[in-house]
Amino acid sequence: MFDPSALAVVGASTVEGKIGYEAMANAARFDGPVYPVNPSASGELFGATFVPSVGDIDDDVDLALCCVPGSAVPDVLEECGQAGVGAVVLYSSGFAEAGTAGEELQERVVEVAAEHDISLLGPNTSGFLVPARDLRCSFASGVEEIPAGNTAILAQSGGVAHTLAYQSRRQGRGVSAMVGLGNRANVGFAEAIAYFDGDENTDAIVLHVEGTDDGRGLLEACRESDTPVIAYKVGQSDVGDFAESHTGALTGDHELYTAGFAQYGTPTVDATDDLLDAAAALGESPTPRGPNVGVVTAQAGPGIIITDRIQRAGGRLPTLTDDTQERVDEILPGVTYADNPVDTGRPMPEFGEIVTAVAEGDRIDIVLVYELFEAALGLPIDELDGLAERVGKPVLLATEGIEETMADERAALEAAGVPTFATPERAADAAGTLARYAKLQADQAATDGGRGRPATGAETGGARR
Amino acid sequence: MFDPSALAVVGASTVEGKIGYEAMANAARFDGPVYPVNPSASGELFGATFVPSVGDIDDDVDLALCCVPGSAVPDVLEECGQAGVGAVVLYSSGFAEAGTAGEELQERVVEVAAEHDISLLGPNTSGFLVPARDLRCSFASGVEEIPAGNTAILAQSGGVAHTLAYQSRRQGRGVSAMVGLGNRANVGFAEAIAYFDGDENTDAIVLHVEGTDDGRGLLEACRESDTPVIAYKVGQSDVGDFAESHTGALTGDHELYTAGFAQYGTPTVDATDDLLDAAAALGESPTPRGPNVGVVTAQAGPGIIITDRIQRAGGRLPTLTDDTQERVDEILPGVTYADNPVDTGRPMPEFGEIVTAVAEGDRIDIVLVYELFEAALGLPIDELDGLAERVGKPVLLATEGIEETMADERAALEAAGVPTFATPERAADAAGTLARYAKLQADQAATDGGRGRPATGAETGGARR
Repeated sequence: MFDPSALAVVGASTVEGKIGYEAMANAARFDGPVYPVNPSASGELFGATFVPSVGDIDDDVDLALCCVPGSAVPDVLEECGQAGVGAVVLYSSGFAEAGTAGEELQERVVEVAAEHDISLLGPNTSGFLVPARDLRCSFASGVEEIPAGNTAILAQSGGVAHTLAYQSRRQGRGVSAMVGLGNRANVGFAEAIAYFDGDENTDAIVLHVEGTDDGRGLLEACRESDTPVIAYKVGQSDVGDFAESHTGALTGDHELYTAGFAQYGTPTVDATDDLLDAAAALGESPTPRGPNVGVVTAQAGPGIIITDRIQRAGGRLPTLTDDTQERVDEILPGVTYADNPVDTGRPMPEFGEIVTAVAEGDRIDIVLVYELFEAALGLPIDELDGLAERVGKPVLLATEGIEETMADERAALEAAGVPTFATPERAADAAGTLARYAKLQADQAATDGGRGRPATGAETGGARR
Repeated sequence: MFDPSALAVVGASTVEGKIGYEAMANAARFDGPVYPVNPSASGELFGATFVPSVGDIDDDVDLALCCVPGSAVPDVLEECGQAGVGAVVLYSSGFAEAGTAGEELQERVVEVAAEHDISLLGPNTSGFLVPARDLRCSFASGVEEIPAGNTAILAQSGGVAHTLAYQSRRQGRGVSAMVGLGNRANVGFAEAIAYFDGDENTDAIVLHVEGTDDGRGLLEACRESDTPVIAYKVGQSDVGDFAESHTGALTGDHELYTAGFAQYGTPTVDATDDLLDAAAALGESPTPRGPNVGVVTAQAGPGIIITDRIQRAGGRLPTLTDDTQERVDEILPGVTYADNPVDTGRPMPEFGEIVTAVAEGDRIDIVLVYELFEAALGLPIDELDGLAERVGKPVLLATEGIEETMADERAALEAAGVPTFATPERAADAAGTLARYAKLQADQAATDGGRGRPATGAETGGARR
């Protein structure tokens, strides 16, 4: 599914706006053969010649994108099975989300797939992307612009998957994969998490979950994943009726899900941007060893917001050691506030040194830095470059200013391994998720230890990456 | 203070990086005389000739920006008073936020100001901006890029004031004013709210509050304001010690503040971006008559997020009237989901018509639209242009896609009076704040009515704008 050598677009169409056209337009960017399949079409589409059926293709096609209406899907699957296609994306709706007839149709489709050992994405999905492989199996517009990154997005809703992918681009990030799971006929959360845990381009996995029949499979997969997983479970209020009409699942009991994720070592968040922020923080950083955050700020007001918010998000703000406080005082005599947070009162040339002193402090597991951008001073790129790796702790930075003026410095800091954030709240929430992840992973290791399963380095989160 | 004809920058300096230089650099953009004042300097700075003291200026200076250290402030104020200067910005720190000696210094300053009837902004602030008047009384960099808009930012912290102003620019919005109140020696929240309520360029007022001695004055000013006020009260966790070191105020009891704001008709939010989103929604829209939100979405997943979140944020999602449902069904037979939310399943040419049908529905007070951007279809600009005004209800739209591709259409929609948002959660939170505003204003009108104070149109929020 996610690493094919040749593609077929079944139901490819020359009519702009149709799914069979849009899916072919995106798929055609793949760096390998892409065959438009349609018995009633002829000629070329995006430089490839139409074939009447999947069986008429000489190449070994691994992946078929199925753009035909629901009722035609079983026959197409049968044809794919006979041609040895191992994976199919089903865009069409009218399956389990659409009453009894749809449920029956989905059952038939799953049977045919089982018979031929076909992995199914969907039905009722807008597809998936693997930008690093130029693999764009979606019918949405603009997906060719979504850059490669190290976060895998696994969303129950194709619409939310795309929302997250566009959002990731807007934040200057990118994705290792974006997957809309839809009705999860036979590829569900469990299968997708396990796959992307083994994907070398993926450093963090984010989940959008509405509800699933296989809650235990989902949670087990989260626990087994060596790659950090963060989950966004929607549906706290009464959205049951509308949600069931969507991907055929009730949103279920929100509190049960949240408790379940925690028990299986997976922190949860409450918004799309929080999900991507947490992925950036976890994916780019050394695994935090504990929930203690050291805050350095150049302005007190945002520092208060951050201090307040980190604690509400599950982080702790320990008093700095005497040693750290003395170092801060030596670097900057008469500093505005020298405990945690350290408030320098204004950006200044010594700012990077102060951050280093706090990061090296004994009681600190995570460092969060805030400063308004001052063009004359810039960001402390040299001091922060490699700091996280050296001290083995995540170092996050939030800044605000005139976007264009600070874009280069911000990009340099990102390139130096420092995840950056635009608002004090979002940075604090990301630090809070790091803190919760550290606590949940430690609980996990303790539980596994108690069961006689040895706590490995990976499970205690000590030195995984 | 906020509408001067001539300025003086006391303590202006030729040394780049010093506050006296940076403040002069920004102030010099004012379209009126700006005098650099410094007894030990001569020559010119930004095209203006140094004068030794405020008393040596022939022009009537209304506003002085005071860049001298705290200890020199009383003498500068005395000088300003004798020269008839009516308003002074005090950038320096070392006042009430800095122990007993600082408190005494602040008292002296307030006394001198009272003697000469001088309005003081600060001390301990980074100043203010009124972009529409080219008035940039801040020492921060890049403030000349912050565009004029219709939201007045009144923040206890200068750092948060600037954070919000830069953020507003990044969101494609702007400010009628940005004010960092700092220690609020004699210009506090009450005075600033009353002033900007009367400002014709201001359609929404947002507050960042850490804590104040004059809670009642603040709340009364909120209630008296005809312009919608939204408040962000920080400090739910233990940040007391650090906060007191900031602008000389404890953050106080968070719940008391929140309840107080509600009682006085002011909704509260919990993040800087929520504050600006709510201001955009309230400032651009007709005042909502109630909390009932009609949601139209082109993708179910984001629709579920929005439906869930609006209810948690204080909005209601009533069932659509039979009439509305019939109209929706006529426009789009076989629509994916035709109740509230209406889910069209995909963006389509009829999308704008559906939004219009929902907006015209009897039970709906607020409309929220979500669609992923499809380049071939664009946004329903023609249908939404003027819709909010015509039906007398706020119409908000959230969209996501490739930023550059949709920038023009999004700007056109904003220009047509439809506030736009980037994530489903932020749009839902803004709609929720509109709903809470409607409920709080109705409560307010009922209470005033009960006291024998007639409920005017403005108080019931019926037809104010």
